[in-house]
Amino acid sequence: MSELPSVTEADERIRASVPLFPAERVPLDAASGRVLRQQVRAERDQPPFDRVMMDGIAISLADAGRREFTVNGRQMAGMAGAVLADPAGCIEVTTGAMLPAGCNCVVPIEQVVHEGDRVTLLEGWEPTARQFIHPRGSDCHQGDALLAPGVRLRAPELAVLAANGVTEVEVAAVPKVAIIATGDELAEVSQQPLADGQIRRSNDRALAAALRDRGFVDVQLTRVPDDLAATTARLGELLATCGVLVLSGGVSVGQRDFVPEALRALGVDKVLHRLAQRPGKPMWFGIGPQGQVAFALPGNPVSALVCAVRHLLPALEQAMGLAPRPPERVVLAAPAVTSPALTCFVPVRVHHDDAGRAVATPVPAPTSGDFSALPGTDGVVELAPSAEPAPAGTVAALYRW
Amino acid sequence: MSELPSVTEADERIRASVPLFPAERVPLDAASGRVLRQQVRAERDQPPFDRVMMDGIAISLADAGRREFTVNGRQMAGMAGAVLADPAGCIEVTTGAMLPAGCNCVVPIEQVVHEGDRVTLLEGWEPTARQFIHPRGSDCHQGDALLAPGVRLRAPELAVLAANGVTEVEVAAVPKVAIIATGDELAEVSQQPLADGQIRRSNDRALAAALRDRGFVDVQLTRVPDDLAATTARLGELLATCGVLVLSGGVSVGQRDFVPEALRALGVDKVLHRLAQRPGKPMWFGIGPQGQVAFALPGNPVSALVCAVRHLLPALEQAMGLAPRPPERVVLAAPAVTSPALTCFVPVRVHHDDAGRAVATPVPAPTSGDFSALPGTDGVVELAPSAEPAPAGTVAALYRW
Repeated sequence: MSELPSVTEADERIRASVPLFPAERVPLDAASGRVLRQQVRAERDQPPFDRVMMDGIAISLADAGRREFTVNGRQMAGMAGAVLADPAGCIEVTTGAMLPAGCNCVVPIEQVVHEGDRVTLLEGWEPTARQFIHPRGSDCHQGDALLAPGVRLRAPELAVLAANGVTEVEVAAVPKVAIIATGDELAEVSQQPLADGQIRRSNDRALAAALRDRGFVDVQLTRVPDDLAATTARLGELLATCGVLVLSGGVSVGQRDFVPEALRALGVDKVLHRLAQRPGKPMWFGIGPQGQVAFALPGNPVSALVCAVRHLLPALEQAMGLAPRPPERVVLAAPAVTSPALTCFVPVRVHHDDAGRAVATPVPAPTSGDFSALPGTDGVVELAPSAEPAPAGTVAALYRW
Repeated sequence: MSELPSVTEADERIRASVPLFPAERVPLDAASGRVLRQQVRAERDQPPFDRVMMDGIAISLADAGRREFTVNGRQMAGMAGAVLADPAGCIEVTTGAMLPAGCNCVVPIEQVVHEGDRVTLLEGWEPTARQFIHPRGSDCHQGDALLAPGVRLRAPELAVLAANGVTEVEVAAVPKVAIIATGDELAEVSQQPLADGQIRRSNDRALAAALRDRGFVDVQLTRVPDDLAATTARLGELLATCGVLVLSGGVSVGQRDFVPEALRALGVDKVLHRLAQRPGKPMWFGIGPQGQVAFALPGNPVSALVCAVRHLLPALEQAMGLAPRPPERVVLAAPAVTSPALTCFVPVRVHHDDAGRAVATPVPAPTSGDFSALPGTDGVVELAPSAEPAPAGTVAALYRW
């Protein structure tokens, strides 16, 4: 076992080999969830003007102690040009409006009494300078760096793009992904009845769901028979049209494990084959002639999904230019099985305790050949090689499904 | 302030009013990310047969101590029918194959030497009964409950559906959502130049991103002027075609706050207007004549997004039938501002420390009128009313953007 690369070494090899996917420009409304590949600076100061925070009246405090004002005009949100010349007057304003010129205080509508065009401050209300005004530039100044390349565009980032007039945005292109199931034992989901020895294709659905959840919208599923020529031909077609190939099955050392040979024949450079982890030891990874990313995962369902969340998805996020973030860390609620020579991955369910800790309860799958135990789990924890089981209280990295 | 409903009371009112969205049947490959609305049981035992775990040979241990075997046949994954009659023979098998009848042990290919049709166990290898065999039914038995209504269909759940022959699945229908921006100060993102007093529409982009991220794929953005008749007419059209209306702006007590009046005129029953929280106090929530969910959020950007993640999204998840989960809890890394009478929400950035705690660093927005401070934050923490700031170490619920 000891000659197999460790998970850390595998990480390094993968990280050093993964290309950067190209960038593309998309309309703002298509950018949700995408990885930003440009810098975004403030178009102007925010707020762009001294902004009224409350519905009410804008006044000048030049005439100190004055509590009665004559309405001289209105300035609603979106309007401009109101000027207060006389400190005995006031301007009616709404939330979000520009502060009228000549004013330096806003009094909320709840603190005044209107009578005709006379407005009186309620007893006890003391207006002070700059009250209920967001000063121009208090959030940011024109030219400030607001977004850097490598962020995923979620709600706040989308709003910043919109607020700064970015109608088209440079983001990582999302490659087409082909998921290829291998194995003559696989039957279609719809096949009825199943023959003896057959199982339904399910790995590819798990992998597709994990990829779609990360924004890979163009995922196609296909299947190849356990045959070198047919596998090579189909993979060749897919390499011509897809940026990412994800295979499941056919990567062990058995007689029918044609996948590494087929990939080699197609010029996909092997970077890694087999690593010191369980499940997922047989994983194969390489880079195609045009920079295509190819992961050949084990055929065991749990193994395939573990390899996907631990290796495939981080590699693709790097390729899109997403800034790396350390993994979540969780505390084991119960001991979990480890191996002296292999990094082990154990499915867990996570909850948050009263101390703010993320507590992970191991949910070992009875076999790595089936998904039945996994619904309701959140992902897997990574446990370093050890002669002893990992005790309760161990802090481990979590990789979510 | 004290007469305003608390956040907890608002939760209860919203929860009691939200309808259950209808269910619909979709093809398996369109079910990723959807909320399951049916029970799923095991179609058959898993594994459905005694399953070979390794490439190698299947033997019988009836002839105890035998270390040499003659190849009697092969049974690859997906094949059936092989029978071992003579314990001096063996059957070549691959991972995932049915265990041939008459066999009770699998020896991995790495532990044998082939010479012609003779196979010899490597010195030191001791075969034991049931070795490298996943017994039939060791993952689950036919009829076992595997998935319950209310789970979100992610990778493991999709795989379970596929493995059990579910080609069409009953999930919550995803309603059309209309996001309606109000405010005469709003300019289009593309407008050049901006007039004095104008700001660009950005709230709707933030809300749309948060909704799309939760699987609401059919989100349309629109805008109404600050005018009762026009607002009423447009909202009437949207109520006829959308299951969810999300407004921003126009819900305070100002002269131009037409939204509550327009909704009332259209028969949308008010359940809540204003609650004891900051930001987001003016929020309005009601239910339309055909069960439409209507949230009118404040126009301040941060307020609108806080109300969306704290109230709107949980309400919609309940309406889809998603089983409730307690919120994540995090530990404050630094003191955060609270209010004696209001529940406060503070933007935070979350990282995980060496003790497995999720540590939240407050990132207060200078004003609630702008998103500039929020990129890179993960969400907001909820802080109960208190006369003192929440000290570092406070454990608080996190609502992610």
